[in-house]
Amino acid sequence: MQRAVNTVEIAEDLTKNLAIFSSNLKYQNLPGNVVLVAKQCVLDGLGVTLAGSRDPLAAKLISFARAEGAYPQSTVLGFGDRLSPTQAALVNGSAAQALDYDDVLRPILGHPTAAILPVVLALGEKLSVGGKGVITAFVAGVEIAARVGAMMGEKHYEKGWHATGTVGTFGAAAAAAHMMQLDAETTAQCFGIAATQAAGLRSMFGTECKPLHAGKAAMNGIIAAELASRGFTTRSDTLECRLGFADTQTDSYQPKQALEGLGKLFHTLDVKFKYHASCFGTHAMLDALSVIKSNPAYNQENVERVELRVPISSLDVCNILEPITGHESKFSYRFNAALSLLNEETSSLQSYSNEMTQRADVIAMRDKVSVTSAKNLDRYATDVFVYLGKKTVITEHGDMGPPVEDFGTQGEKLERKFRALAEPLIGHSNTNHIIDSIWSLECQPGVEPALSGLAIA
Amino acid sequence: MQRAVNTVEIAEDLTKNLAIFSSNLKYQNLPGNVVLVAKQCVLDGLGVTLAGSRDPLAAKLISFARAEGAYPQSTVLGFGDRLSPTQAALVNGSAAQALDYDDVLRPILGHPTAAILPVVLALGEKLSVGGKGVITAFVAGVEIAARVGAMMGEKHYEKGWHATGTVGTFGAAAAAAHMMQLDAETTAQCFGIAATQAAGLRSMFGTECKPLHAGKAAMNGIIAAELASRGFTTRSDTLECRLGFADTQTDSYQPKQALEGLGKLFHTLDVKFKYHASCFGTHAMLDALSVIKSNPAYNQENVERVELRVPISSLDVCNILEPITGHESKFSYRFNAALSLLNEETSSLQSYSNEMTQRADVIAMRDKVSVTSAKNLDRYATDVFVYLGKKTVITEHGDMGPPVEDFGTQGEKLERKFRALAEPLIGHSNTNHIIDSIWSLECQPGVEPALSGLAIA
Repeated sequence: MQRAVNTVEIAEDLTKNLAIFSSNLKYQNLPGNVVLVAKQCVLDGLGVTLAGSRDPLAAKLISFARAEGAYPQSTVLGFGDRLSPTQAALVNGSAAQALDYDDVLRPILGHPTAAILPVVLALGEKLSVGGKGVITAFVAGVEIAARVGAMMGEKHYEKGWHATGTVGTFGAAAAAAHMMQLDAETTAQCFGIAATQAAGLRSMFGTECKPLHAGKAAMNGIIAAELASRGFTTRSDTLECRLGFADTQTDSYQPKQALEGLGKLFHTLDVKFKYHASCFGTHAMLDALSVIKSNPAYNQENVERVELRVPISSLDVCNILEPITGHESKFSYRFNAALSLLNEETSSLQSYSNEMTQRADVIAMRDKVSVTSAKNLDRYATDVFVYLGKKTVITEHGDMGPPVEDFGTQGEKLERKFRALAEPLIGHSNTNHIIDSIWSLECQPGVEPALSGLAIA
Repeated sequence: MQRAVNTVEIAEDLTKNLAIFSSNLKYQNLPGNVVLVAKQCVLDGLGVTLAGSRDPLAAKLISFARAEGAYPQSTVLGFGDRLSPTQAALVNGSAAQALDYDDVLRPILGHPTAAILPVVLALGEKLSVGGKGVITAFVAGVEIAARVGAMMGEKHYEKGWHATGTVGTFGAAAAAAHMMQLDAETTAQCFGIAATQAAGLRSMFGTECKPLHAGKAAMNGIIAAELASRGFTTRSDTLECRLGFADTQTDSYQPKQALEGLGKLFHTLDVKFKYHASCFGTHAMLDALSVIKSNPAYNQENVERVELRVPISSLDVCNILEPITGHESKFSYRFNAALSLLNEETSSLQSYSNEMTQRADVIAMRDKVSVTSAKNLDRYATDVFVYLGKKTVITEHGDMGPPVEDFGTQGEKLERKFRALAEPLIGHSNTNHIIDSIWSLECQPGVEPALSGLAIA
């Protein structure tokens, strides 16, 4: 029987209860599918980070870190460097988000793995934490981020905060605290130090500062845990206190959401992976178009116009009408619809290039697509209407919201995605080695076997 | 003749105009008193940082930094270490604020030098910037912080942001950009990268996270300039844009305030220095009590009760009624009034100890003091009523608001304060050497002559 808890009580102990949950999380108590999905997050995160290390932003960040110097402790993916834990977390976290090809989690309204994986990699290598410990700390990070995100509600994002940066800092801090085996009280202090560093503006979308938010969240999470472990003083009620994190940064504070089903309901299971290299907001449309294209009545030549009905919340996220850069093209419904209708590969990073935005057939197809918003549409859904000739319309409802049920198939898809990203950079044999070491991470001595294959110059 | 400028125009170019002003600032164009006060800020900042290096928080921060490692580039005051610029800025900035004995500036509603001086010290040493360049970059930092603070208005602070951390990040970024000689466009980019890192919650007051905000502001300011100099992409309209810094973090956006008298009116002249080692909110009261004590009618034995009328804005800042720690005692009107009435030295850090809060005579005097708020009182003012026996009351209005007119006397007082803080730690000869090198900073090759005397183990 669950004890009846009133809102005030919950609010009073919110930060502490999350800290108790996080610090007490043990590998042997994790549901099997949570472990499975966590490893999928890790493999996918390694792939997108490695690919992201080839984005110009990573070179700028590592150039800065090299100038500062450090004891070589933590590997930067895609480079030969080992840097300090915070430096490696900064570069790897930013690289993980650079391509916008990394996983998402609804309660955060953002990207969990980009802010959390760099923490367990950096500290796992420094502290030689075993595979089980790495998985458990990662799950602690995702769960805390999800619960803090749920607590903040949608107004946090709507007011202009990029939750990957703000809420992500708590996920990174929880993961760092767990890696360092901080007790519940110290973990609550760690959350306090995290709260007062959390930052990231949504107005930065479209610039390199967007992925920087994930890197900074990872870096600040480690700083929080390192200072907490040294007895740095702060508040241990930072989520719920007056002038605290929720009070200053949301109008939709939902303390009950933060604690609902704690220890029983794992948000990790709800992580959504990306199989298209575009903004997640476009994925429901792309999935719907796939179904439409498999309809016998469909014929590319006859596409007269395409109508998209999208959620209002997506209009200022992924509705760039006439993108001209590869980066912008990821945030364009119309461009992505054109790619799909022309059978270009939306899982390929190369499809999102400056050149592709200017190809005549792409522009022609793009200009057949119109976008309107629909009030009652869920944030993760899109209705697609493809008009063929004068008389035929094929319609499909796409929705990324429903929970995944077949985690095995998800793993197969993610393994293919990882291969596509990693093999061109590190070769077939290294790629196999990393896949094997992540699928068996709970039996590995730690993250080193995987990292050794990812540290290329 | 000044061109008439409408609000929309101002708002559109706000960030860029501040970046142009900051990057174009030249030593030879600075009014003499601005140079004078800047040097006073530097000397006072060195003193409070050195003293703050003995606070436990500095040991925790440097322990963390040492574990990360770095190329030795920038001196940590009060320690033997040279660390990376961001690490030195983090430790020095936090130490500068640790004792709450550092200067304040009204438009920021916070502490300018703690976030800005560490930047010019760290980069000055790394880049061998001459004394004139150091002074000019410091002034750029203070002016930008003041103008961003004025733009945000009082609601920023009232909503729960510690402006030393948030607004201070822009000051630190401006100083770093100036030290690195970034052009106007790159400086505007630097402000963008600063904006999306700016953080610091006022609910952290009373913990070590409050001074951490200054250290993090300094650190993040350097990160912003380093990344901007490498072409890291961001927005260059971050102060005024939708979902930007002002939009997300204040309800009292005042774009005109940011640009008023730009290039003519220097806020640096308005920096207020602390001669009492307590929260600045208590200083008007302490000054008023000094005057009252010099009144021939005053007699300590006859003090029956003391009534303080304080601004409403101070009630949740410095009105701890019964402090029990030395730190809390700095934020207590009643305790500070007792110290003054008992002729204890409010300029001495030693007066703010756990023991002092429990001394019987201090508690007895403290309990004679009552605090009420007065609606129309300025944020920097206090009315004091000392009741002597049954028939006599001496009253005095204290106000820290009016501008300083005698900068020479201010310099003498600051030199005495610096001696009192520095001599016990670095000796008489080193203290003289540092005072000389700061009073002649414009003729020095840089900050090294001063730093060499401050790097003690």
